[in-house]
Amino acid sequence: MGTVIHAAEAATSETLLHPAREQLDLAAVLHALSDPMRLKIVAALAHAEEERTCGSFELPVVKSTCTHHFRVLREAGVIRQRLEGTTRMNSLRREDLDACFPGLVDAVLRAAHAAHQ
Amino acid sequence: MGTVIHAAEAATSETLLHPAREQLDLAAVLHALSDPMRLKIVAALAHAEEERTCGSFELPVVKSTCTHHFRVLREAGVIRQRLEGTTRMNSLRREDLDACFPGLVDAVLRAAHAAHQ
Repeated sequence: MGTVIHAAEAATSETLLHPAREQLDLAAVLHALSDPMRLKIVAALAHAEEERTCGSFELPVVKSTCTHHFRVLREAGVIRQRLEGTTRMNSLRREDLDACFPGLVDAVLRAAHAAHQ
Repeated sequence: MGTVIHAAEAATSETLLHPAREQLDLAAVLHALSDPMRLKIVAALAHAEEERTCGSFELPVVKSTCTHHFRVLREAGVIRQRLEGTTRMNSLRREDLDACFPGLVDAVLRAAHAAHQ
């Protein structure tokens, strides 16, 4: 008897920390958004109809850099990451962001879109 | 004859670099705004009726840190700094920011204000 933690279980039950809506911090969110790669990720998630895996983004950076960007976004409360097996499924925390910072995500997405036209 | 640059002149005519409106970069602006002290400076300038000196902001940081924050804001194009003698006069580049990133400064100021209530 007793508790046995298999390596596979430990990996899949990895704790992905997310700040609660009331913990979202403006400076931290702006910092998370202040990078071209992370802006691309956020814009893509804003237009996605469902969750997307990290690998589905065609970003011109190595995997570890990519993982870092997703972590910064998650820890600031910009995206939610959910494990499905060992795959991280990503979505934008649009409702939380709009509730805490009305108009901010809209303005950022509009500006990011305009910059790439 | 010839050009003579006096030390005093060199100091007062220090080149304060400002990006042109069309050079403003979203990621750089978001980075400049992603700090609590810089958000305070921007909020204060947004409500100021005229230019303000760096020293007029009661920020709980040493002078060199303060100078750094103003430089980050200027180099990102968020504020304009003008020398009056040896004093730097600061103003928000509201029109340039609103032209490049419609709604962004409004959303940030609203969120910053809400966070401090």
